[in-house]
Amino acid sequence: MKVIQSTQNQYVKTARQLKNKKFRQKSGLFLLEGTRLICEAINAGYPLEYAFVSDEIDEELVAQLCGCCETYLVSPQLLLTITETENPQGIAAVARQRTVDLSEMVPTSEEDLLMIADGVQDPGNLGTIIRTADAAGAAGIILTATTVDLYNSKTVRASMGSILRTKLAANQSPAKVTQWLASYGYKIIVGHVGAQRYYYQVDYSGKVAIVVGNENSGPSEDFKTAGVPVKIPCRTESLNVSIAAAVLLYEKVRKGSV
Amino acid sequence: MKVIQSTQNQYVKTARQLKNKKFRQKSGLFLLEGTRLICEAINAGYPLEYAFVSDEIDEELVAQLCGCCETYLVSPQLLLTITETENPQGIAAVARQRTVDLSEMVPTSEEDLLMIADGVQDPGNLGTIIRTADAAGAAGIILTATTVDLYNSKTVRASMGSILRTKLAANQSPAKVTQWLASYGYKIIVGHVGAQRYYYQVDYSGKVAIVVGNENSGPSEDFKTAGVPVKIPCRTESLNVSIAAAVLLYEKVRKGSV
Repeated sequence: MKVIQSTQNQYVKTARQLKNKKFRQKSGLFLLEGTRLICEAINAGYPLEYAFVSDEIDEELVAQLCGCCETYLVSPQLLLTITETENPQGIAAVARQRTVDLSEMVPTSEEDLLMIADGVQDPGNLGTIIRTADAAGAAGIILTATTVDLYNSKTVRASMGSILRTKLAANQSPAKVTQWLASYGYKIIVGHVGAQRYYYQVDYSGKVAIVVGNENSGPSEDFKTAGVPVKIPCRTESLNVSIAAAVLLYEKVRKGSV
Repeated sequence: MKVIQSTQNQYVKTARQLKNKKFRQKSGLFLLEGTRLICEAINAGYPLEYAFVSDEIDEELVAQLCGCCETYLVSPQLLLTITETENPQGIAAVARQRTVDLSEMVPTSEEDLLMIADGVQDPGNLGTIIRTADAAGAAGIILTATTVDLYNSKTVRASMGSILRTKLAANQSPAKVTQWLASYGYKIIVGHVGAQRYYYQVDYSGKVAIVVGNENSGPSEDFKTAGVPVKIPCRTESLNVSIAAAVLLYEKVRKGSV
């Protein structure tokens, strides 16, 4: 294994710059930190560019990692200059972003479930939505252009690896997505505090797309007009957007199972 | 309004020390940051000890605050030494912790709903659970002794003010709580990945207590033995604990409403 000692090494500099959204977008790369995420990436066959490990890491994992990509030995101090978490557990990897076009989301089942995040702003919320959609069996997740960057480190961590396993389409326009969904016969169920009907009063059979919107302003007009707005009973002003997404996703799951 | 200029002022020092859990526990105080939380506290008549404002704050809010507690004018720089958020919006207040005994949680309805957090470790998750339980109409929230400190600033923020409005019993033992719940005829529904039954296959009628446990090890044996363990369909390894709590809470809500 090659050793890197300089903080000015090109790989180290690139990895460090991945904290910056513009650099992530320009390079098409993002950073994975910690053993759990990197094991997930290896198991999912996710494309890794190169990795950094410090002495603390278990040999078996290092061997697996070396089989996937170029792996460099660095000091724990050098690793901390790259990572955002306080405890990266001695391991980080640079991975290639992998989103798909809508054309690759074509439904494969009559009960297909899609999740749509339309302008969600908090990276942790977006990561939790991706994790929950994956858990609920969603075939894919679509993000509109006003949604926070998918490859933000907080989103990646909160997704608990689901970002590496699920089909993701990013930067979409609400108008285009609603058209596409309609063309495939999706029912669009839109979480919206101003809706007339409660979420459990509508039909979830067939192909369903669940939409949640911005934490403050909710989903965009395109979705509210094209879809069925539903509300969730709520004694308080609102629910966290990842909670709203979960309640709607699981309504589809439970109706299909009961 | 009195002005404080010194970082060594006793009120400022106390407020700053509230970042420390031990000091919070010893003093019985905690810190509220930002206009939204402080407006919630004023509206809920929550006991505030004293507050700090900088020039940026709107006069009406300052007037309201002065009617509630001693309010000091500080510089934005001094305020930042007190607060944990990057943008405290020019306002912070020291509030008194207010938890209740189980004896104050006696059910008042045959459809009473309680939320129990048994060893939840992440402050943000706990805050989101409190917010969701409040939204779902829970009469109270019970935290076992292994749960993260309720007055952690991240918990307070994630609760979006629900921490100021809901009945909270903290530091409880699982054995005592299960006994107490049984004595009032509560059905105890326990989220557990190893359960046999799905969450939508059990009866939620009558008084219900929903239990979620530690992010890694789940709920304690006392709850699993005394209650009905239920699982949530999940393609991934697990759900975020606040998501699991929401799915179970809303199963009670929807079953009572459909």
